[in-house]
Amino acid sequence: MSAQADPYWSRVGTHWEMAPRQDPVVWSEGPTAGGPLSPAEVEHYRDQGFVVKRGLIGEGEVERLVTEIGLLAVAADRSLDEVVTEPDSVVVRSIFRIDQKSEILAHLLLDPRLRGVATQLLGDDVYLHQSRVNFKPAFSGQAFPWHSDFETWHIEDGMPRMRALSASILLTTNTEHNGPLLVVPGSHRLYVRCVGETPPEHFRQSLKKQAYGVPDPGALTELVRVGGIASVTGPPGTVVFFDCNLMHGSTGNITPLPRHNIFAVYNSVNNRLVAPFGGTPARPDFLAARA
Amino acid sequence: MSAQADPYWSRVGTHWEMAPRQDPVVWSEGPTAGGPLSPAEVEHYRDQGFVVKRGLIGEGEVERLVTEIGLLAVAADRSLDEVVTEPDSVVVRSIFRIDQKSEILAHLLLDPRLRGVATQLLGDDVYLHQSRVNFKPAFSGQAFPWHSDFETWHIEDGMPRMRALSASILLTTNTEHNGPLLVVPGSHRLYVRCVGETPPEHFRQSLKKQAYGVPDPGALTELVRVGGIASVTGPPGTVVFFDCNLMHGSTGNITPLPRHNIFAVYNSVNNRLVAPFGGTPARPDFLAARA
Repeated sequence: MSAQADPYWSRVGTHWEMAPRQDPVVWSEGPTAGGPLSPAEVEHYRDQGFVVKRGLIGEGEVERLVTEIGLLAVAADRSLDEVVTEPDSVVVRSIFRIDQKSEILAHLLLDPRLRGVATQLLGDDVYLHQSRVNFKPAFSGQAFPWHSDFETWHIEDGMPRMRALSASILLTTNTEHNGPLLVVPGSHRLYVRCVGETPPEHFRQSLKKQAYGVPDPGALTELVRVGGIASVTGPPGTVVFFDCNLMHGSTGNITPLPRHNIFAVYNSVNNRLVAPFGGTPARPDFLAARA
Repeated sequence: MSAQADPYWSRVGTHWEMAPRQDPVVWSEGPTAGGPLSPAEVEHYRDQGFVVKRGLIGEGEVERLVTEIGLLAVAADRSLDEVVTEPDSVVVRSIFRIDQKSEILAHLLLDPRLRGVATQLLGDDVYLHQSRVNFKPAFSGQAFPWHSDFETWHIEDGMPRMRALSASILLTTNTEHNGPLLVVPGSHRLYVRCVGETPPEHFRQSLKKQAYGVPDPGALTELVRVGGIASVTGPPGTVVFFDCNLMHGSTGNITPLPRHNIFAVYNSVNNRLVAPFGGTPARPDFLAARA
């Protein structure tokens, strides 16, 4: 496909550009009252690009999940690509494909409380495109720069349309201060084309610190001028669902309060991956399921 | 002076320790109604270790100050010790001794709106112990780890007692998200002794990234458990006054909103510096005035 034929082309020019989203945000056409989200929550998601559900996961469940991710971290083999360490250290930052490493986590990610929301918003059956746990330890947790997931998933993974979303499950209290998820409300309605080409095996470095597929400061400034910045805070068990094209990031964590979240990405079964739109070889399966 | 005779000894042991503060927080004995702060503001400072004054500096004045620090940055000679760059980059992080580089800034720091508060709280005439501007640029501003100023000023500079305070003047809007000052309310009432010795010429590295005189994670966890974390946010022209022993720090800035602050440290004329209590040679004058 030529760059011109792909509405979501990116990384071919020398300057950034913003284009309107070509896809619905909420794909279910009819009444959505049957799903877990209320009509007001669905409208919030459509307008803002995210919705926060406090108390979706119970206290006892959260405790079991915290124990489980601790066990994963203890067992994590840092020689595997799917175990990502901090830049310049052996501290584990992310572990991918957690649904294949733990029955408890696999069960969680298939739970109707999470998957049911994805089905409702995407208007279709869904499958797990990616799963991971992100550790942001007390005192030393590192920042995640701003990005739209979809830009990378489209260019590097071959996800055709914006018909996917992420669920982030807060396992610790997320405050304004310990590096919570920051989002730019409304930014999901615009697609920011990034500058430059993708180097070979980019993912090895980008999971530690992304340098390509990064939105230009000018584009971010414009998005924030319009939409501002909102932080997702809440007690353990809070879940935030956010659109695949919502601009998001997070600062580092210098506080004594660790900030650990589980992420699950759900994709419509009618939006399965094809060849990467950027023309590079497909990334490994742990980043983008092709089952 | 032997370590035991100094109530604020530090960096001699292999484990951290917390000791009660040996000095008043508010030194003025009589009624404080004559000063710029109200009795309620004085009590807030005594209890929490800081007080925030919105609108202390007018809009037009802030604009002139922003212009002035921009000129300083343009002219900054990075070969000087008093111009500090980010670790691994030439981006200017701090410029010290700004009262000697700009008449406008010198005038600001002697202004009764700032110095009068210091005189009121410290119950004495004061002089400028240190002045600087801190730049925390949009997208890339770096974090400042937690620390008590006094620990360093005592051990490395020879400040005898806790009879000094800082004023930080917000020159841009400080939000929850662009790396505002974070403080641990009430932490000024405890002195955290740090672990380890001070290496020679420590300041050259410590101004970029501090590694000694850093409170132990265990001590910080305890302080935050008791006092929590508060952030100092507000529009340009807001000023926060905080005690020399208040535990504070700040996260990085990934937002498009730069965060630039001016700092002035006022010390009682009866608390002038002596030989450093850690036994190392005194640090340069731009860090600790000995005039």
